[in-house]
Amino acid sequence: MNHGNERARLKLVKKGLALLGAGLLSAQALAAKPLVHDAEFYVLQKQNAERWAAEDKDLDATLEKFKKSNGGKPPNIVYILIDDIGFGDLGSKTLNMIRGYETPSINKVAREGMRMARMYTEPSCTPTRVAMMTGRQPHRNGMGNTAVDISGFGLAGKEVTLAEILSENGYNTTHIGKWHMGDIKEAWPNFQGFDYAAFPIHQQGQLTIYHDDAANEEISVGIGDNNYDDRYTMDRWLRTDASAMALGVEGTRNKPVKEVGIKPGERWTEKKYEEMNYRYQEQAMDHLRKLAKEDEPFFLNYWPLYPLTGPRTAYDEYTTPNGGNYVEKMKLVDKWIGDMMEEMETLGIADNTIVIIMGDNGHFTKYSPQSGYSPMVFRGGKGATTEGGVRVDAFVRWPGIIEADSVVGDIVHVADLYTTLARIGGAYDDIPRDRIIDGLDQTSLWLNGDTYGRRDYVFLYNINALEAVVKEQYKLAIPGGKMDNAILADFYDLFRDTREEKPVSTEIGAWGGAKFVRMLQRHMMRKQKYPSEGPATGMPYDGISNQRPETKAAVQEFLFMMQTPKM
Amino acid sequence: MNHGNERARLKLVKKGLALLGAGLLSAQALAAKPLVHDAEFYVLQKQNAERWAAEDKDLDATLEKFKKSNGGKPPNIVYILIDDIGFGDLGSKTLNMIRGYETPSINKVAREGMRMARMYTEPSCTPTRVAMMTGRQPHRNGMGNTAVDISGFGLAGKEVTLAEILSENGYNTTHIGKWHMGDIKEAWPNFQGFDYAAFPIHQQGQLTIYHDDAANEEISVGIGDNNYDDRYTMDRWLRTDASAMALGVEGTRNKPVKEVGIKPGERWTEKKYEEMNYRYQEQAMDHLRKLAKEDEPFFLNYWPLYPLTGPRTAYDEYTTPNGGNYVEKMKLVDKWIGDMMEEMETLGIADNTIVIIMGDNGHFTKYSPQSGYSPMVFRGGKGATTEGGVRVDAFVRWPGIIEADSVVGDIVHVADLYTTLARIGGAYDDIPRDRIIDGLDQTSLWLNGDTYGRRDYVFLYNINALEAVVKEQYKLAIPGGKMDNAILADFYDLFRDTREEKPVSTEIGAWGGAKFVRMLQRHMMRKQKYPSEGPATGMPYDGISNQRPETKAAVQEFLFMMQTPKM
Repeated sequence: MNHGNERARLKLVKKGLALLGAGLLSAQALAAKPLVHDAEFYVLQKQNAERWAAEDKDLDATLEKFKKSNGGKPPNIVYILIDDIGFGDLGSKTLNMIRGYETPSINKVAREGMRMARMYTEPSCTPTRVAMMTGRQPHRNGMGNTAVDISGFGLAGKEVTLAEILSENGYNTTHIGKWHMGDIKEAWPNFQGFDYAAFPIHQQGQLTIYHDDAANEEISVGIGDNNYDDRYTMDRWLRTDASAMALGVEGTRNKPVKEVGIKPGERWTEKKYEEMNYRYQEQAMDHLRKLAKEDEPFFLNYWPLYPLTGPRTAYDEYTTPNGGNYVEKMKLVDKWIGDMMEEMETLGIADNTIVIIMGDNGHFTKYSPQSGYSPMVFRGGKGATTEGGVRVDAFVRWPGIIEADSVVGDIVHVADLYTTLARIGGAYDDIPRDRIIDGLDQTSLWLNGDTYGRRDYVFLYNINALEAVVKEQYKLAIPGGKMDNAILADFYDLFRDTREEKPVSTEIGAWGGAKFVRMLQRHMMRKQKYPSEGPATGMPYDGISNQRPETKAAVQEFLFMMQTPKM
Repeated sequence: MNHGNERARLKLVKKGLALLGAGLLSAQALAAKPLVHDAEFYVLQKQNAERWAAEDKDLDATLEKFKKSNGGKPPNIVYILIDDIGFGDLGSKTLNMIRGYETPSINKVAREGMRMARMYTEPSCTPTRVAMMTGRQPHRNGMGNTAVDISGFGLAGKEVTLAEILSENGYNTTHIGKWHMGDIKEAWPNFQGFDYAAFPIHQQGQLTIYHDDAANEEISVGIGDNNYDDRYTMDRWLRTDASAMALGVEGTRNKPVKEVGIKPGERWTEKKYEEMNYRYQEQAMDHLRKLAKEDEPFFLNYWPLYPLTGPRTAYDEYTTPNGGNYVEKMKLVDKWIGDMMEEMETLGIADNTIVIIMGDNGHFTKYSPQSGYSPMVFRGGKGATTEGGVRVDAFVRWPGIIEADSVVGDIVHVADLYTTLARIGGAYDDIPRDRIIDGLDQTSLWLNGDTYGRRDYVFLYNINALEAVVKEQYKLAIPGGKMDNAILADFYDLFRDTREEKPVSTEIGAWGGAKFVRMLQRHMMRKQKYPSEGPATGMPYDGISNQRPETKAAVQEFLFMMQTPKM
């Protein structure tokens, strides 16, 4: 049971009183205090403030009306984030067909809701997930890099997640599935605002490649105990598989987590990975049922591990004409999402729940074409800042509020979900004002539709290098992220050339170059005012109550290896 | 007024009597005499004949029932073929949006009808149009090449077009717009079965590039009278523009045509091209109204010239965020199609008319990105046998008979329209049995939906070279069309790799190579039995009643130039 609403009220009163006491702010100004955004936002705001203010009045009225009709509560939120799925893989029967598989459940959601045709993410899993949860692009908090293996870093506790601010405002919060924001305790979902979380500490690389099954298929070369000739081996930690790492854990808010699904001495296998996937689906369904019964609204994060999968076995049935191993699992994930949508109907919460389904970045092209996927409409995949790396399918469904079967062409960045859902969930005032929030409020886009977006730009970072800048239909691609080269960079018209294959220059390069360089300068000067920080660091796995001996040994080895530079 | 039904009955009786007289065929066998197809068809037929026969009984009943409900007549047919439009350009709001323009009218037709997600054409205009009209791939009749400039060849009179056989069976037939099957009389639509035709003799190259406006923009280099320094010129015919060529003509069945829209001494301009486009749209609408009033069913071919267009002028308004010059015209063509669909509603013929809308081949990539289009889902454009050259958007709408909002993934080739429409139009028995018909009957696909197609292969020719073979999801790409290399050719899985970028070999190359080579051998041996022929040749423009003096002079010059090798 969560008493968030009351807690939130008390908190707001306290905060207000404190500030009022300090003579800093009037009560009205407190609520109205604007977010701190990137420089480009202010360029747009200056030109559109009046229109936006008028819209906002109507939007507030609509949201208020919804709340009244919903027993005084804002809507529930179900956020389903699918791994490494490129643009065009979901939501379109035609594009399904040319790939030889179908995603009927997601296509149905797409038809019942809004398709955000121009959703940008970050180029890989960790940064996209961080951007959604914190409203901040991860170059600001050191989370641009994808954590692999034992690493001792993660999302800092001082980041303020959507789960935290929704929780503060009365939401029950649950996270199930992939998290992938580090192996240190403060980074974990149950320490970042979720009342309950079940998740693997690491990402699917560890879970699908670092095991004997993958080694036997030569997907990973020589990982594991019996898959290489060790006559030259001196460092027995080099080729360890996932068995010695912490795997799936579960826990409640701010409490140590418990590892499940593997016992001391056991080896990690593809079968165990499969069990983990099915377990998360069951848990997502169970928690959905539990959350639906509570008085409070809820925020359910369900981030499946599939479609990423390990090697096909001789026992796997083919269920699609495509037959690629990711495609096959995507079909399963689609079915699971269908089950969840159906369950929401049964539970009577289909109409007061916002459902968002989207990919987290482009394809993992290393596994094309065996995965069944390869980039189509856009060029590049995961890890690239070409559109293929950062444009994804994205759908939002909120019956009666968001127009069914609609498509919007406005630019949206995944960080915008943070700000938009905070506003809709009544948590806008708890978004921190002491740091840059990249996420812009897109409530108007959702409620009013196409052309009502509030973003016309995206800065595309690859880890900490700014590789491209998008504004409207134009994209400046900066070679190697080297800012000094910006004036010589390639300039693309993304409407006319979705795959960034034919740079334009004679028409728009001249003004584009200059305009975009100024945009870059504004962005960089803003970064000087609000400097980027590194991630939090700490002791890996601290906070797992039942660490296995082999896991403890692996951490000790990690710590020793970190010390070697100083020796 | 057309007495086709009666004529057809008489013809069939006569033909039957003659054959019966010769003791060759019973009356029943006459009707049942099968078409002559390519070898691969018989492989499929052997394995599926029973199922197909059962389906065919039901299909015949459905078609008969429709006829009864339609005053004893088969449906009208409106066939709209759009030039150089790649896959994904039409029919999808999402894909529209990411390009910055919309095709709402065509999208509506797509939703009201069936989307053939795997429609193959030939790789350029002339062969695709010939395949549709004759049911034969143009390597069989010398029409694989796109006729440019004055050429003295064209579609042979002995080819039996869909217009001819529908006309024989009671249809009124009209062709408006692009034809592009040669500059000799016997090739023209009004000599190939159309009661009335209005069309340019040449394609849009001549109409949009060979004129002073294009020369002034340096789109064409030095074409025309005042666009180059002629101090080195000895051959004054090299750089002639379209003004000296025959342009738009109109005429009735088997009668000489009359040139319209240009007077002797006048020069061809982009303005005139624009007028021609608007004229064809008006004529298409006028003829639609006229045809709707007749007692007979009709076949209306409307093949717009836009979206291909010449240079943008300073006076052209921008009507789409994309703004590419082809995209802008595509928006106009979409509006025109919308007007036509609306008119069909008004005329009360929306429900008894089959409407087909499709592209004729991939993008003219030479004009990317200025055209506003560049290939997306598939690689390559016009002139290529990669999927980008030969996969197009294709929709068929027949309310009450073809399921609305359906998508089929079966392979269809544009030649299949010939056979399918012949069957539906009651003209199946008039398809010639003395030659290979590549077009397969896809009535079952249209009426029964996904997986009911009768084709699992396509032979992809570029002019006369067989460059690729598709069967199911596999494609063998033969380097340079050299058959001897087939065993070394690249082998692609089109579901997993739509852009043909990652050849597969370990999995399927071995069996694929062998299976595909045998498929090629069957195809080639069949060609020996039914050898390919060249196109018809003749006197260009003979059959235009009002040739301008400059046109006559150009023909004389052409004839002289053709004789020079013998001098």
